[in-house]
Amino acid sequence: MSDILLRNLRPMGGAALDMRIKAGKIAEIAPSLQADDLPVEECKGAIAIPGLVEAHTHLDKTVMGLGWYENAVGTDLRAMIDNERAERHRLGMDPHRQSMRHALALVGAGCTHARSHVDIDTEHGLAILEGVLATKDALQGIIDIEIVAFPQSGLLVRPGTLELLDEALASGADLVGGLDPSGMDRDPKGHLDAIFGLAETHGKGVDIHLHEAGTLGAFSLELIMERTRALGMQGRVAVSHAFCLGMNDWHATEALIAGLAECDIAILTTGAPSREVPQVKRLHAAGVRLGVGCDGVRDTWSPLNRPDMIDRTRIIAMRNNLRSDADLALALDICSAGGARVMGLQGYGLEVGCMADLTLLDAETLAEGAISDAPRPLVLKAGRVTARNGAALRKAP
Amino acid sequence: MSDILLRNLRPMGGAALDMRIKAGKIAEIAPSLQADDLPVEECKGAIAIPGLVEAHTHLDKTVMGLGWYENAVGTDLRAMIDNERAERHRLGMDPHRQSMRHALALVGAGCTHARSHVDIDTEHGLAILEGVLATKDALQGIIDIEIVAFPQSGLLVRPGTLELLDEALASGADLVGGLDPSGMDRDPKGHLDAIFGLAETHGKGVDIHLHEAGTLGAFSLELIMERTRALGMQGRVAVSHAFCLGMNDWHATEALIAGLAECDIAILTTGAPSREVPQVKRLHAAGVRLGVGCDGVRDTWSPLNRPDMIDRTRIIAMRNNLRSDADLALALDICSAGGARVMGLQGYGLEVGCMADLTLLDAETLAEGAISDAPRPLVLKAGRVTARNGAALRKAP
Ligand SMILES: [Zn+2]
Ligand SMILES: [Zn+2]
Repeated sequence: MSDILLRNLRPMGGAALDMRIKAGKIAEIAPSLQADDLPVEECKGAIAIPGLVEAHTHLDKTVMGLGWYENAVGTDLRAMIDNERAERHRLGMDPHRQSMRHALALVGAGCTHARSHVDIDTEHGLAILEGVLATKDALQGIIDIEIVAFPQSGLLVRPGTLELLDEALASGADLVGGLDPSGMDRDPKGHLDAIFGLAETHGKGVDIHLHEAGTLGAFSLELIMERTRALGMQGRVAVSHAFCLGMNDWHATEALIAGLAECDIAILTTGAPSREVPQVKRLHAAGVRLGVGCDGVRDTWSPLNRPDMIDRTRIIAMRNNLRSDADLALALDICSAGGARVMGLQGYGLEVGCMADLTLLDAETLAEGAISDAPRPLVLKAGRVTARNGAALRKAP
Repeated sequence: MSDILLRNLRPMGGAALDMRIKAGKIAEIAPSLQADDLPVEECKGAIAIPGLVEAHTHLDKTVMGLGWYENAVGTDLRAMIDNERAERHRLGMDPHRQSMRHALALVGAGCTHARSHVDIDTEHGLAILEGVLATKDALQGIIDIEIVAFPQSGLLVRPGTLELLDEALASGADLVGGLDPSGMDRDPKGHLDAIFGLAETHGKGVDIHLHEAGTLGAFSLELIMERTRALGMQGRVAVSHAFCLGMNDWHATEALIAGLAECDIAILTTGAPSREVPQVKRLHAAGVRLGVGCDGVRDTWSPLNRPDMIDRTRIIAMRNNLRSDADLALALDICSAGGARVMGLQGYGLEVGCMADLTLLDAETLAEGAISDAPRPLVLKAGRVTARNGAALRKAP
């Protein structure tokens, strides 16, 4: 919780103003504020936005700092999952160290919040969770981390996993995860009943990876909506990827989107360029809450993703054909405030009274800032500077 | 044409070697070569690849250096074309200055060759072509530029354009361009007869923008193949975008791809994430020559593209789901040697006797170099250093 005066910044790309931060919150925004005894940070006309929100990632999976990972595994989902479980041992992927590296890279690129899925399986038990929980703890006041207990290797197909998920939720995980009820677990009813049962028992939200495309994914979405309604969990369920919403059937998709809006189920997308994806403008117009994530970064799955929500805003824009300044502002909003809405963050924004979680962008206009690879000049968490010129102040192990 | 000794580089990511360049050509590659009286460049173990080839762009369209362009035009093709024609005047887009900026940005990022479409229309006549021809001339020995005379605003729908194209081909344009024979010109037979007629008259190759999707684009492709066969133009025709090859009809696509291979028609792709696109692995396996381009960069159409073929390799990889080291090597090959094959470049490669057109990548492995945003440490054209640390030595106007 810091007191500081930010001089000469442009909130959302508007006119240059000063911002006074008191006790970690935005206290005043106006031209030419008096510094009094506050420390002053000159922002040189940089654009200020509320902190970027990484709403779908896997902090435990990165191989950052371990040398180049030679990927020979191909693109089959189960092959990639099995490969990763084995490689964690071979590469010595310490979950705390790796998640620190990933999370601090996010901070350097302007993130103030992240939601991370964390693998729970019968081979690693809760060891991975413990590592990421240690990171969450170590980075308090730098980045807020939400943890989803994630049955990456399957739930029902791996006896013992359900009990581990239960334990994970009692041990600090914030949400229940799930994964392809049919494609992975071969039992959509059984999988979703188990997931929602855990959510009910622990009073926690749900975030389900749904890669299933077309009508199979649509059926899974219907089952998720039915359970959301039955348990009164409106506003507390999210579906990640939801590739089925990209299917080429306007009427079927329209019905699904209406159901999502009615159940207030959030959709998290990475804008995966190689897949059918939910079209963000369409879902946004229908009132569906949307967040964006980079997904796993430099991991055994792929080296293509970067721990940078501005890089991801550009990918979202490319995938969704967003080109105009207005559309790029929307993309940026989804990558920052959108994630905050999905995570139900309180006091998030640039208004007086909000937490001073801010990212500065070195750009002429908001649209340019949304897609420019220029390093972020400054990042603040509760008014405290956490990164400068693209690098977190806290060094990663 | 330069003589130089490159010390400690890793051709295609292999073992570190030295390379002697004599009279602009690769003369010897071996460990620990004697420098004799050659100037020596220490490469610090950087990876060497043959120069990157930008095989589809528009050097005349960028607004680089003119401040942020506020885009309010939306995504309709004809609206974007009309908007651009008007904005060229309003923004004072000098074609020579703008194409110099764009081309030198490409050089900074490791390009040694580029194919640029150049707008020919009844409003600007040949003025834009003249500007880009001046750039081609000014940058001889830095980057080789191939020019396609491109009827961006329509051919038959704009009387007078055909005569201008004819004049452009007599005035230094290297290829005949075309655009959406049905979608834009409303007369596929008439459009393609005119384009191929010009090609025959001038003895020049063809490169046609084909955005038409699905069966309409497939029909256009068939007409292009028929004319290629009839005129014996195998190996001298390229189709850019060819979104129809991304359609979800395996058999229809298979027939088109077989036809392309038989006619030796090259396909140029940008890997557009928002569109159906040709899948590069499938076309490569069928023996179709492939090249890649960034398309227009920071123009009135969109701010999303960058003048960087490594950035584009990553986009190609994302769009085509290429993740393994082998697949990333393929993507990089298409973005470098692939473009050279499309342009029919002689003496292109890393073998002894080839032109010393080289790009160095700062990376541990070739796959990392294919997608890393690290600035290129060094770029050479015929053995002469043209860029260092991501910036061309020649300053743009
Ligand atoms: Zn994920
Ligand atoms: Zn083009």
